[in-house]
Amino acid sequence: MSEEEEYGFNFPELIRCKRDGGQLSKQDIRALVRGVSSGSIQEGQLGAMLMAIWQKGMAAEETVALTEEMMHSGEVLRWPKAWEGLVVDKHSTGGVGDKVSLPLAPALAACGCKVPMISGRGLAHTGGTLDKLESIPGFSVSQPVEKIREILVDVGCCIVGQTETLVPADRVMYALRDATSTVDSLPLITGSILSKKGAEGLNALVLDVKFGKAALYKDLSSARQLAQSMVTVGNSMGIRTGAVLSRMDAPIGRMVGNTLEVCEALDCLKGCGPDDLRELVISLGGYLLWMSGRAASLAHGQEALAEVLSNGAALQKFQAMLQAQGVPAHVAQSLCSAQCDYFLHLRPAEHKTELTAQSDGTVVDVDGMVLAEVLHKLGAGRTKAGEPINYSVGAELLVTLGQKVKKGEPWLRIHYDWPALDAQLHSDLQAAVLIGTADSYHANPRVAEFILPQ
Amino acid sequence: MSEEEEYGFNFPELIRCKRDGGQLSKQDIRALVRGVSSGSIQEGQLGAMLMAIWQKGMAAEETVALTEEMMHSGEVLRWPKAWEGLVVDKHSTGGVGDKVSLPLAPALAACGCKVPMISGRGLAHTGGTLDKLESIPGFSVSQPVEKIREILVDVGCCIVGQTETLVPADRVMYALRDATSTVDSLPLITGSILSKKGAEGLNALVLDVKFGKAALYKDLSSARQLAQSMVTVGNSMGIRTGAVLSRMDAPIGRMVGNTLEVCEALDCLKGCGPDDLRELVISLGGYLLWMSGRAASLAHGQEALAEVLSNGAALQKFQAMLQAQGVPAHVAQSLCSAQCDYFLHLRPAEHKTELTAQSDGTVVDVDGMVLAEVLHKLGAGRTKAGEPINYSVGAELLVTLGQKVKKGEPWLRIHYDWPALDAQLHSDLQAAVLIGTADSYHANPRVAEFILPQ
Repeated sequence: MSEEEEYGFNFPELIRCKRDGGQLSKQDIRALVRGVSSGSIQEGQLGAMLMAIWQKGMAAEETVALTEEMMHSGEVLRWPKAWEGLVVDKHSTGGVGDKVSLPLAPALAACGCKVPMISGRGLAHTGGTLDKLESIPGFSVSQPVEKIREILVDVGCCIVGQTETLVPADRVMYALRDATSTVDSLPLITGSILSKKGAEGLNALVLDVKFGKAALYKDLSSARQLAQSMVTVGNSMGIRTGAVLSRMDAPIGRMVGNTLEVCEALDCLKGCGPDDLRELVISLGGYLLWMSGRAASLAHGQEALAEVLSNGAALQKFQAMLQAQGVPAHVAQSLCSAQCDYFLHLRPAEHKTELTAQSDGTVVDVDGMVLAEVLHKLGAGRTKAGEPINYSVGAELLVTLGQKVKKGEPWLRIHYDWPALDAQLHSDLQAAVLIGTADSYHANPRVAEFILPQ
Repeated sequence: MSEEEEYGFNFPELIRCKRDGGQLSKQDIRALVRGVSSGSIQEGQLGAMLMAIWQKGMAAEETVALTEEMMHSGEVLRWPKAWEGLVVDKHSTGGVGDKVSLPLAPALAACGCKVPMISGRGLAHTGGTLDKLESIPGFSVSQPVEKIREILVDVGCCIVGQTETLVPADRVMYALRDATSTVDSLPLITGSILSKKGAEGLNALVLDVKFGKAALYKDLSSARQLAQSMVTVGNSMGIRTGAVLSRMDAPIGRMVGNTLEVCEALDCLKGCGPDDLRELVISLGGYLLWMSGRAASLAHGQEALAEVLSNGAALQKFQAMLQAQGVPAHVAQSLCSAQCDYFLHLRPAEHKTELTAQSDGTVVDVDGMVLAEVLHKLGAGRTKAGEPINYSVGAELLVTLGQKVKKGEPWLRIHYDWPALDAQLHSDLQAAVLIGTADSYHANPRVAEFILPQ
């Protein structure tokens, strides 16, 4: 408060400036973010400012200042000097079936990196990494900073929830963005994501920016805009930041739903699992290794990643991380053993229903968004933050894109408890698979483009 | 709350609609205004919505719905059936030296109208009718609805302050508009002004929309836009509404400042006073009489107004109004007598300083805005609502536009107590008068245009 007064800040004046499309100074943005942290800006003023930013955008310098001020609104993690260059993380804009973090964090640790991964929970149609991990008995996502440091020393990676002390300004702003329909603003998204990553004390960061039917951005060019904004700001903050633009139409892998995705992530760590999941883990991890100087080229980085997925080194790190975060040793060991029946440890759903193809042909598309919406209604996701969810609800694709199917052949298995899979949801799901002719299918890799650090 | 839930209203959705330039339905706007009155809309959401409206505007139907919902957020005054067609009022967008309401209300009452005038206080550079009247000993602007009705029966006019029960939604919205730099929005201004006039239960309304250096709108065309918006909405609400576009560069009349303006208004009611003040009173009142069907033409209406100003009928109504609103009978009578020394009853300022012309020539302009700003600094106005002000501070123009002056001739008398008129204020004032050549002066009437009811 006193500093705002000292500099003579005047929130109506700042709002007027942005309202009219003007550029806020570093000092203006400092006053704004401090006003948010201290509560000296009225909630109504913040709402008006968020809308003005949504309408008029921000220049790169403004976005950098916003992100840095938000980051410094709370604690910023610091690491031992010996780790310089090793501390890395990934952020994804969210997709359906996106369990990439689960194999990626331990794989990077197996390559010698330190990964203090702070993740989120699912909201609306997107799943949350924390929810997935919490479907494992004993796993605790709440870890104090001292414990995070200890796990990074011992294991090299952890996956934890946001703490109270990191980026408090973002909590206020994010909740109000949600209430005021100002979530989808480039500078506000950038500020929210990168302030949190900055507070992790990272050296390098790779962003998985998704585009497609089941992503926030439907087309490549708007995803590229967000990626470029974040890459610019990340590098301005002193974090070596690159991005990958990846397709998000059909779900990633064959499994969607918290428990089922844990199973698929374990398969990936055992060197098996679906090709597209392995491709994403290798691409994102390899890119990080290259950017952070741990690999001489992108190809070398990707080879290193492929190796730790194949030779069990990543799996070992995952097992150690599970134990460090509260999973009983015998459970962690069993889940990570070669021939484990995962449902000895994870709770299966009570009911399973298989859907069958309605005609002969080739599977040319699976609509991840429709799948996610149906699973949401079955209890797999939450509408409001804080709601409980059913980890066991999920869907298992029984076909892959490009596969030839015959009418009556099963293509999808739905796992559910209550509510039941009624006729409406059943028919919504049937519409989610598109059967066509073989020549109307074109295989695409998940990764469409790399955005280099600038 | 229950109704919003019943209709399934969702404020983020309403904000998104306006954010994207969409049109809100009558039901949406009802939910919004009820949310404001009940507090069920978060202040941050209202701030974002005000900014979205500022950015994207509103269609005429939306503005009508907003105004009507705001009006119905509180009590709406109802009058005896016998008064049908007689209940009229004026609203001005505010200017420097604008004391028109003081002679106009009693003049209209003298013509047989009922005038339940609800006025405001001064803020920033504009003066407030209530402040002016409060400089008269005993005058009370707070009158309960029952007393207002009684004064209208007995006298025909009253000038009172906003009551707690009228248009509560406007109080919340106005305070937040001020804090969020969303005051100057056509639909929000229209809603705020006309909801309050609507709650007065009027049959006819004339709007004095000012343009020029000392007005909210600097140019004729933006003033015309506001006037047209308000005329459309007023008539849609069933109030016969017209507007006058009037020039607001030099102050109205020769006096600026609360006490001094009361003196000038009294002069006008005695058939004297400055020509431009009399012109405005006659134009606005005549227009109202014509619109409300009390005069066969605009000219007849204006003649009726001129007559009651000249024959003492308006003065008599003013005296009765003063008494009805608390002024001791002998004071009211004395102020309204022909040869009164007003300062027997009104407190004069301690100091008077005369400024003199800096060169020979013709007075071609007086900058009302500069004058108002200096008087504000001398204590005549308030920066925040609720601040006390000094009624005695004011300025007296000693020259008229178009008048020839000689260097050293006095042109302005400043009345002040404390703070003193320092060198800076003195030189600001000197810059407020523009001396030129006789042919660079063009006399303009105050009234530039009439906007007819639509």
